[in-house]
Amino acid sequence: MSQAQVSDDDIFAGHEGGKLSVAATRPITHARDLSIAYTPGVAKVSRAIAEDEALAQRYTWADRLVAVVSDGTAVLGLGDIGPRASMPVMEGKSVLFKSFAGLDSIPLVLDTTDVDEIVETLVRMRPSFGAVNLEDVAAPRCFELEDRLIEALDCPVMHDDQHGTAIVVLAALRGANMVLDRSIADQRVVVSGAGAAGVACTRILRAAGVGDITVLDSRGIVHAGRADLTPIKAELAETTNAEGRTGGIAEALDGADVFLGLSSSRVDEGLLETMAPDPIVFALSNPDPEVHPEVAGRHATVVATGRSDFPNQINNVLAFPGVFRGALDAGARAITENMKLAAAEAIASVAADELAADHIVPSPLDARVAPEVAAAVAKAAESDGVATRPLRPSA
Amino acid sequence: MSQAQVSDDDIFAGHEGGKLSVAATRPITHARDLSIAYTPGVAKVSRAIAEDEALAQRYTWADRLVAVVSDGTAVLGLGDIGPRASMPVMEGKSVLFKSFAGLDSIPLVLDTTDVDEIVETLVRMRPSFGAVNLEDVAAPRCFELEDRLIEALDCPVMHDDQHGTAIVVLAALRGANMVLDRSIADQRVVVSGAGAAGVACTRILRAAGVGDITVLDSRGIVHAGRADLTPIKAELAETTNAEGRTGGIAEALDGADVFLGLSSSRVDEGLLETMAPDPIVFALSNPDPEVHPEVAGRHATVVATGRSDFPNQINNVLAFPGVFRGALDAGARAITENMKLAAAEAIASVAADELAADHIVPSPLDARVAPEVAAAVAKAAESDGVATRPLRPSA
Repeated sequence: MSQAQVSDDDIFAGHEGGKLSVAATRPITHARDLSIAYTPGVAKVSRAIAEDEALAQRYTWADRLVAVVSDGTAVLGLGDIGPRASMPVMEGKSVLFKSFAGLDSIPLVLDTTDVDEIVETLVRMRPSFGAVNLEDVAAPRCFELEDRLIEALDCPVMHDDQHGTAIVVLAALRGANMVLDRSIADQRVVVSGAGAAGVACTRILRAAGVGDITVLDSRGIVHAGRADLTPIKAELAETTNAEGRTGGIAEALDGADVFLGLSSSRVDEGLLETMAPDPIVFALSNPDPEVHPEVAGRHATVVATGRSDFPNQINNVLAFPGVFRGALDAGARAITENMKLAAAEAIASVAADELAADHIVPSPLDARVAPEVAAAVAKAAESDGVATRPLRPSA
Repeated sequence: MSQAQVSDDDIFAGHEGGKLSVAATRPITHARDLSIAYTPGVAKVSRAIAEDEALAQRYTWADRLVAVVSDGTAVLGLGDIGPRASMPVMEGKSVLFKSFAGLDSIPLVLDTTDVDEIVETLVRMRPSFGAVNLEDVAAPRCFELEDRLIEALDCPVMHDDQHGTAIVVLAALRGANMVLDRSIADQRVVVSGAGAAGVACTRILRAAGVGDITVLDSRGIVHAGRADLTPIKAELAETTNAEGRTGGIAEALDGADVFLGLSSSRVDEGLLETMAPDPIVFALSNPDPEVHPEVAGRHATVVATGRSDFPNQINNVLAFPGVFRGALDAGARAITENMKLAAAEAIASVAADELAADHIVPSPLDARVAPEVAAAVAKAAESDGVATRPLRPSA
């Protein structure tokens, strides 16, 4: 359905009063209900947990609750709009967690952008939740914050703008390669953007075996000869661009097989002509792709965007609900690289049934995706030794 | 219904998986729903709030969300059992907020007992909620913590173990006095217990005009001659016990009109005989009242407990759902003393319809109570100048 059919009035009406509600799983109708859910009955449950803390997993909601955490510094394409203005997005994430994976989650938006303070706050809150979906935190702070949280918390932590995007991009590239009968190892991929998504996509593409990756930031190709690199870009310079390219987008795209746009930098049509034959173009900037999909389609064999009004929508919702569901099902203490790779494989496998150049990923609404992703992620958690619960027979 | 009919199996089954669930207020079924609740639609709502922060009240759930906050240091009668073990109680509070007042709330249990750290944590989380129900924090730390939070946060903050209890006790005393046709000003009240509930009950009874109050802690009557008083007890010594009584429970009860037990210290039957004629006994320790209600009934004209299996159950659920609902309806920046007094009046007024010695307060399940309390509290907020929203015509 076209985005044009949604008016501003529709949008604001859809957010009136917020989008979430906390419900009781059992009604309070009789005095008996009250004496079970609250005093005096609840004292027995609390005492049991005090004696054996592991029982909190069974008798509270916290163990399976996702905290959707943001400081509001990189919200969608809007930038640093602050925690209050980020709340509608975080509520939206909670809606999607519930709708696609049946997971409960609470948005926690923080009035601090200090990494130490955010870590400290979540460590203090640790008994309240079972996992952290970090969201819309600006780069490069997001890299340090995620690393620090993973170290400080004994539960799944994932910055979705990094890894959710990376997982779906990898799934889409697998889909495109299946359509084109190509191997991921033989391709040269240009990643435009070295922010949260660019860094994570580069990392997962490397982990998946992409042979040659060229990364660009706002100053051009990231290479070891540049003096202006942040630590994370210095790492990219070491691990990518084996041929030592320098220059800008023109030098990068010349002969490349895949363009992955994650930066909103425009790409002229002429540059697409310089790519290798039958190129793949993922122009994921939203709402304005780096190159319009109709323009890209004149040159590329497979085109994907982040938009719902064109084919091949690359949407994080294909990944994060299932990733967290699988991690929590397994009682995983962390989210490993293999769990992310398994999630990408699972998404690609769902698309494989109806594969075509205009259907390299499943629809964001495809209800088969999250359970498949969850099962694959839980299995990978077990293989990686981070699971604390046995897999269910169905998984 | 008797508590004896609820088995341990029933209780634990009633808590399996936790008692809360987060629901989306609008389903995600079509691509259109997704583009409203999430990208790209949500960006318009976030941008609007970034431009006018007041719109967060209208387009997020945070403004009407109660954070149920505890450090797990004084949980029911169980003491310092820690944050994880306190979670079933906090979930129970959330269930009651929803069931009785239609309010959404989230339990936040903290892995710190440091007042500075708790205040700091909630200040950082401030954009995530609209009010704080402080719960099960040990005395005397709870007094400082509540004061500090009220100062630091521009929203309703109430430690329910103090003020929820105090409000319902005052309502019950009003009910008992209506039954006995007595004036609150003429009574001498003995408060056994100088913890969270004892201090708050003493304060609200003074504010309501009780003439003479004698407070006891574990070492006896609180009086100005004692050298072992904490600051809060020193304040009690100044504001109560005008006749300068010394000694223990025997000296205190001699000739008293009302016994208010909030400490689990046993009271012998013989002492009740020394009270003034037709005394009132509120033995609120749970599950074991300071004096068994059947024993108390041999001497007292009105007896109340915290238990659901005897008449006159003094239960905080009569107060906190309506208090927070009223405060949030009014957009109150704080909860004032008059709002608490108004809540007590509203509870007493609902009981007045069926007033009797064994019905001095409404049933905890009486659905009329919370709306009446909310309306009275919102009105008092407006009178006190802390409201930021106009009263609705019905209030």
